[in-house]
Amino acid sequence: MAHSNNKMSTPLSPVASSSSRRKKSQVLKPMPPLRIGMVGGGTIGGGVYELIMGRLKEERPYSPRSSSKHSKQSQVCRKRPLWITKVCVKDLSKPRSFHLDEEITTMTTNVDSILNDPNIDMVVEVMGGTGLAKKVVEEGLMKGKMVVTANKALLANHLESIQGLVNQIQEAQDKQLLQHQQEQQLYMYNMPLPVASCFGFEAAVCAGIPIIHTLQTCYAGDVIHQIQGICNGTTNYILEKMKNGASMEEALLETQDLGYAEEDPNEDIEGFDVRVKICLLAKLAFGLTVPVQDVPCRGITLLERIDFEYAKVLGCTIKLVGTAQRLHEAREWDGPLSVYVSPLMVPKDHVLARISSHGNAVAITSANMGTCSYLGPGAGRFPTANSVVADICRIADGQQGPAFPIEAPPHLELDLDYIAIFYIRIPFQDGLGIIKRVGELSEDCGVSIHSILQTPIMDRMSADFCVTTEECKVSQVEDLCEAINQQVDFCRAPCVYMPMMREIYY
Amino acid sequence: MAHSNNKMSTPLSPVASSSSRRKKSQVLKPMPPLRIGMVGGGTIGGGVYELIMGRLKEERPYSPRSSSKHSKQSQVCRKRPLWITKVCVKDLSKPRSFHLDEEITTMTTNVDSILNDPNIDMVVEVMGGTGLAKKVVEEGLMKGKMVVTANKALLANHLESIQGLVNQIQEAQDKQLLQHQQEQQLYMYNMPLPVASCFGFEAAVCAGIPIIHTLQTCYAGDVIHQIQGICNGTTNYILEKMKNGASMEEALLETQDLGYAEEDPNEDIEGFDVRVKICLLAKLAFGLTVPVQDVPCRGITLLERIDFEYAKVLGCTIKLVGTAQRLHEAREWDGPLSVYVSPLMVPKDHVLARISSHGNAVAITSANMGTCSYLGPGAGRFPTANSVVADICRIADGQQGPAFPIEAPPHLELDLDYIAIFYIRIPFQDGLGIIKRVGELSEDCGVSIHSILQTPIMDRMSADFCVTTEECKVSQVEDLCEAINQQVDFCRAPCVYMPMMREIYY
Repeated sequence: MAHSNNKMSTPLSPVASSSSRRKKSQVLKPMPPLRIGMVGGGTIGGGVYELIMGRLKEERPYSPRSSSKHSKQSQVCRKRPLWITKVCVKDLSKPRSFHLDEEITTMTTNVDSILNDPNIDMVVEVMGGTGLAKKVVEEGLMKGKMVVTANKALLANHLESIQGLVNQIQEAQDKQLLQHQQEQQLYMYNMPLPVASCFGFEAAVCAGIPIIHTLQTCYAGDVIHQIQGICNGTTNYILEKMKNGASMEEALLETQDLGYAEEDPNEDIEGFDVRVKICLLAKLAFGLTVPVQDVPCRGITLLERIDFEYAKVLGCTIKLVGTAQRLHEAREWDGPLSVYVSPLMVPKDHVLARISSHGNAVAITSANMGTCSYLGPGAGRFPTANSVVADICRIADGQQGPAFPIEAPPHLELDLDYIAIFYIRIPFQDGLGIIKRVGELSEDCGVSIHSILQTPIMDRMSADFCVTTEECKVSQVEDLCEAINQQVDFCRAPCVYMPMMREIYY
Repeated sequence: MAHSNNKMSTPLSPVASSSSRRKKSQVLKPMPPLRIGMVGGGTIGGGVYELIMGRLKEERPYSPRSSSKHSKQSQVCRKRPLWITKVCVKDLSKPRSFHLDEEITTMTTNVDSILNDPNIDMVVEVMGGTGLAKKVVEEGLMKGKMVVTANKALLANHLESIQGLVNQIQEAQDKQLLQHQQEQQLYMYNMPLPVASCFGFEAAVCAGIPIIHTLQTCYAGDVIHQIQGICNGTTNYILEKMKNGASMEEALLETQDLGYAEEDPNEDIEGFDVRVKICLLAKLAFGLTVPVQDVPCRGITLLERIDFEYAKVLGCTIKLVGTAQRLHEAREWDGPLSVYVSPLMVPKDHVLARISSHGNAVAITSANMGTCSYLGPGAGRFPTANSVVADICRIADGQQGPAFPIEAPPHLELDLDYIAIFYIRIPFQDGLGIIKRVGELSEDCGVSIHSILQTPIMDRMSADFCVTTEECKVSQVEDLCEAINQQVDFCRAPCVYMPMMREIYY
């Protein structure tokens, strides 16, 4: 069983190898700067530029400004200076939010002048969208450049092809390195086999929270059961305001003024933004590529003030949450994978209930750990830029692990008809036998009612009551709501339903 | 400025290099298993053994159990099988909490049989203590082995020497790799220069929370201002019970029954356990090696029920928190580094106030991010083992970054006379002019009183009132308390003081 590793030496007395034949006096050249072409010069791009090229230079603990010419070199990455040598933007005449270092950086409107430049080592895509950005990321990878992107939509919608490309490059690289090591009998210092990846997308989900990297590297010995995330600051802000009595419209306007909202408000309030993010998180946690468009997605537009009142009665608050979980009917964690986006009744003491304002949070439940939660800013110039820069540095230093480390086992299925306990609110005008009718319809749909709540009725012609269910499938609840909606004698508006969180605390 | 990188090819069409001279038909050998010698076979060691060697094998999404002989190989690490070939324990006859795979693993009581075994690639130290463990870690490193330790006390108390050793190895390794790359004109696939580290200690702080790795790799472009952590589950549990009316003794007994407490209860309740952890976090966040024994450390033993009542009046709860911050008197974040452990008045809506039971949490405030918080289990077999395994996999895959990536700037000083606003409780027996006397003493000590609180007096001979101060130094508060303690006509017991958290929410 013994198997020698061809180790050459102990680390403190380096000896023989092909490299030991060199003359002792040979001077090592320092590593050349790593040259970055950045595509996009907006809020995030400006932040990345400032972090890499200088803003914080004086204040950085490990990069005191030097008076030499080399002070132009960023010290963010310790092994190799980082230079942003080109920035590609749509309009050269538009004023920029960052100070351009003209000795190092040129501006361009031609993305090919970055992609085809053999001196550019890394492409940073912070332009957004899925058109030109797709070309930038894919061509960048194919041309052998390191690639960092902050683009959630691009990734989630083209996950298979991007993953294929990244894996292809990774495998070729691994193979070449392995060949090289074996030819050279090269086990220097018992050095591990590097499998550094050239692709990073930390900024695509939850801005500053390092959730992508954590999923890639910290759960290697674990099995993840569930991920739940508040991944959209705008809706979290709106829900907080609504809880305190504001209308959705007022709250949305306010958050748009603050500059956090997506350009298209539907991306936020219909849950689409959360949907692409939970699909990315599900990919990393479970290895399955989830078809984004198929994922059940309910936003916050149907919520009303009364829902927050009932939430309070239930000891909960309402959050817009993306969920990916392997729950099945026996409440074990080995079922098929469900992924969905929905407002969720969250017990008020749960960590997700406490996320305020534009904050984001992701709670990961796993076999080894119970629940770990990661909280932080979910948007903004510097939180997002910080994640881009973290990727840049890890890749430049050769510390980036495989982009998609987990492969789904063959038997793992996707079941989008998810299981939960549900809250259903029934808007009604008063009449006789309503509860009985709802009970009959529930039975027809196979839904067991767990409790019935009715706050005091102020207006008999415009009231609401709610039921909570036992565990059932969302399709059953949809059928039930549809059936109730058809009871035009008492049902005055469509029912509103949402799942309730399982009580997982750690 | 142009500088050619000697790139050889695009990744999808590998070509010429020294390695291309090989015959096309050459078959690559798979990587040999990475052989691990583990020192320690207790709770954590048993967890590590189970995670690496099998417990979860069937359920792991990417390691379906194979029926071949090779099913003995762990698939936790994807690039290279992991084998724990030796386990060193004190007593071979003691029953173990894990099932030994006798085909692969031998037990030993002789640590040298691991350290001197050339077939062992990695040493995992999970025995604890600072005696033999020090030898294991240091000799392991010196003999060129990869080393993973879960030992907070060893690291915090011997940080300089261990860091020196790790850096020495890292530099030699980097240099040799750089030489090799330049000799071989080796820029395969524009592959980044690997600087993989062979040392990991994720499990030393906050068990399952990946806080060490996050600090090492996710803040490269950022400047950290403050770290505050609840890093001891035992005291957090006790404080929660005390808040609900239990005595410290009752609560301590309960937590000892649950198996979470340190062997020596003083390590927990006097704050010593938190102290070594905050020193390690401070090292990673600020680059400064903090002499553990000098760090001001107040545990929870002086707290009484009345403190929790006053906390409630102040809208706070009391948590035992380790703090490392660069706060100075102007409330900016560029002062000297302060590190301390103390009960802390935490506003009840702050994320740290919400950590219940044995949970841990670390909140990091930085220039780019505002505050990010990391929550999870702070102790326990599998959370701790999970962090050890994450280190093992990162190192085996060559993804582990430098252990101590940040160097403190030359001007960064340590100032252990920290600045805060303080809560001071004065146990008194009623008399005339007490407030006036406390006011005069405060003035003498240079402490400005911000508020005075007095809950209704039930017993005039045994009452307490409290003051909160403006921002001042802890030495001033100590002087003030000492002065009040000497007022034997009204002061019936020593004053209790603690800092109050600045209101930092994100």
